[in-house]
Amino acid sequence: MALLVQKYGGTSMGSVERIEHVASKVKAAVDRGHQIVVVVSAMSGETDRLIKLAKGINPRPPSRELDQMIATGEQVTISLLAMALEKIGVPARSYTGAQVAIRTDKAYNKARIQQIETERLLADCKAGIVPVVAGFQGIDDDGNITTLGRGGSDTTGVALAAALKADECQIYTDVDGVYTTDPRVEPKARRLDRITFEEMLELASLGSKVLQIRSVEFAGKYKVPLRVLSTFVEGPGTLITLDEKPSEGTMEEPLISGIAFSRDEAQLTVAGVPDRPGIAAAILGPIGDANIEVDMIVQNVGADGTTDFTFTVSRGEYERATDVAKKVVEELNAKGVRTALDICKVSLVGVGMRSHAGIAAKMFKTLASEGINIRMISTSEIKISVVVEDKYLELAVRALHKAFDLAAPST
Amino acid sequence: MALLVQKYGGTSMGSVERIEHVASKVKAAVDRGHQIVVVVSAMSGETDRLIKLAKGINPRPPSRELDQMIATGEQVTISLLAMALEKIGVPARSYTGAQVAIRTDKAYNKARIQQIETERLLADCKAGIVPVVAGFQGIDDDGNITTLGRGGSDTTGVALAAALKADECQIYTDVDGVYTTDPRVEPKARRLDRITFEEMLELASLGSKVLQIRSVEFAGKYKVPLRVLSTFVEGPGTLITLDEKPSEGTMEEPLISGIAFSRDEAQLTVAGVPDRPGIAAAILGPIGDANIEVDMIVQNVGADGTTDFTFTVSRGEYERATDVAKKVVEELNAKGVRTALDICKVSLVGVGMRSHAGIAAKMFKTLASEGINIRMISTSEIKISVVVEDKYLELAVRALHKAFDLAAPST
Repeated sequence: MALLVQKYGGTSMGSVERIEHVASKVKAAVDRGHQIVVVVSAMSGETDRLIKLAKGINPRPPSRELDQMIATGEQVTISLLAMALEKIGVPARSYTGAQVAIRTDKAYNKARIQQIETERLLADCKAGIVPVVAGFQGIDDDGNITTLGRGGSDTTGVALAAALKADECQIYTDVDGVYTTDPRVEPKARRLDRITFEEMLELASLGSKVLQIRSVEFAGKYKVPLRVLSTFVEGPGTLITLDEKPSEGTMEEPLISGIAFSRDEAQLTVAGVPDRPGIAAAILGPIGDANIEVDMIVQNVGADGTTDFTFTVSRGEYERATDVAKKVVEELNAKGVRTALDICKVSLVGVGMRSHAGIAAKMFKTLASEGINIRMISTSEIKISVVVEDKYLELAVRALHKAFDLAAPST
Repeated sequence: MALLVQKYGGTSMGSVERIEHVASKVKAAVDRGHQIVVVVSAMSGETDRLIKLAKGINPRPPSRELDQMIATGEQVTISLLAMALEKIGVPARSYTGAQVAIRTDKAYNKARIQQIETERLLADCKAGIVPVVAGFQGIDDDGNITTLGRGGSDTTGVALAAALKADECQIYTDVDGVYTTDPRVEPKARRLDRITFEEMLELASLGSKVLQIRSVEFAGKYKVPLRVLSTFVEGPGTLITLDEKPSEGTMEEPLISGIAFSRDEAQLTVAGVPDRPGIAAAILGPIGDANIEVDMIVQNVGADGTTDFTFTVSRGEYERATDVAKKVVEELNAKGVRTALDICKVSLVGVGMRSHAGIAAKMFKTLASEGINIRMISTSEIKISVVVEDKYLELAVRALHKAFDLAAPST
């Protein structure tokens, strides 16, 4: 018998039939002898509907009021799932974030969990009752309702698993695990049985949108084994653990776990900047002040004592970033700003890189042999990212997938 | 400066435009120097939508879960109204029943308010903040969400006004006051400036569905002046008070305040019952055991030592009541059950009856002169009800309205 936290997302709660299906999955786990605590999201689309309603009233709704309102989305689904469980003979009880209580700070719309009371939930488990807890929401010390920001239900699931010392936190979603890359781009992409927190963080932040990144950080910090599974397809999913050892029956550690990519990129180059100390700060300071997140950064020293300073931001920030960069050009007496939107980022991720040389060289050679020009390179301990023209995205992903032998073994 | 509780119903919260209109009304009251506490219902139709959703999952949803879910309806509207108030420069803060806290017993779906904490609301008022409180909901001692049953938002408004010792509880609705009768039946019906709690109770329970009856009882018990007004039409509305004195500029007290009527009636007669003590209990006991509410009761003694026992129930209970009555007939060896559905009830209501003889006689004479046969009569201190064939309903109401001079004075 294990204590499992199961988290079901908005798609899994999207209709009466789907809620009934989730109830049957919970029942199956209970019937196998497990103690289950369920965390659910709002029905898919509901949070957006509520936000739209709020903005119809007030384009800048007070953040406390917005949280008060959007927290109703999960309050509906927890009740519905508890009803569905009761109907099939599984005693269940729903809890809002306030009722648990999931204590957070006062940062409305992006609150951080500080503490979770477990007494009531553990008592329910002991009594054979399945607690169904609202994801995404909590309560501050003054009884105000807070929300954790987009994808916060994953964080709730992990935080609950940590607080309850659960054996596993299972994140049910509409994909059946973490893949070596997006199967829509490379049909030969393979589900990974297991991946490390670090790798998952790189894959998630690089665009494989399976799990909310904060929840992975949280799980890593509290050493909560995390499993991604499909609500709709039976299977073992992907286990995300601290453990780096491969579990795939081979003694050889795989070099690369996956290939992430992102089209949500814009490249800005501040050209002809005087090459002197403090230039990076002079450029990135105003960008940071404007609350724009910078991803990759590259600086090339030119022959004439000036340098080109290039960085990427998400496409949504492109115009604001360009405005800031133009001001910086004036202040620094630089030559100008060059921008590019027709780019994408492709990244190799794998803890195996740590102990293997030559991964980068193999990556660059593979891209070169397909005629793909690399515009930027950025490396970390367990990933290598390149920026290329976005028309090459699919080609680059497929070529790398093949070169690093990530496809499922042909049987 | 007065402290006013303003309650806005579901129709008043039915759209973005209407919520903005309510905000402007609250602002107007604040600008006149009043301290305002607002109570709101869910958007019209929302509670029904949620109940339907629940029943789609589980035809008999656990009552705790149903309350947990339907309480979200008001949680959305309090937030929206607070946002709308903030937008027009009125500081506002929304509160769920749990946040206030409105303590109730544990009777889910029909909870009773036991206590309201006023500290936070009074502090807000003092600080120039308008608290917007969710109607219809509360919280029990274990933190479970409860609801007060249909129309419970009126009760919340009155209970808050009582707890806050407010100067008036204003119930904003889609009618501009309490009328002498339904203007759809008698276009000459006149809005009453003032009416007593007792009269309002009789009018409400007899079918003039302006206010939830429990809220009127509550207001009477705690001596909270209650005013019914229209959200959409400016005007003084109708004040419901303990005070019986007329305020309409005439020394003579009006005999009759209004005429209520109801088509939701079914008549059952258990005929030929042995006329002996305990018969009423023998018949009404099983009816009560079946949880059927009986309204009017009449017993006529016949010449042959038997009696006909007649009573009315609401039409929705007609079939169940008939089944019970048939069993009773067998047990009592009575002659049989006669039933009628084509009936209605018309009632004269007025505290003036207490001190005036001849009201009943005038009522019966008026009906007789229109050729309307009376099938049942029931009287209380301040009302006289008759059951007549339902095709005569409009005729009876109009004839009585004229006979008792209830129309607006022609000017």
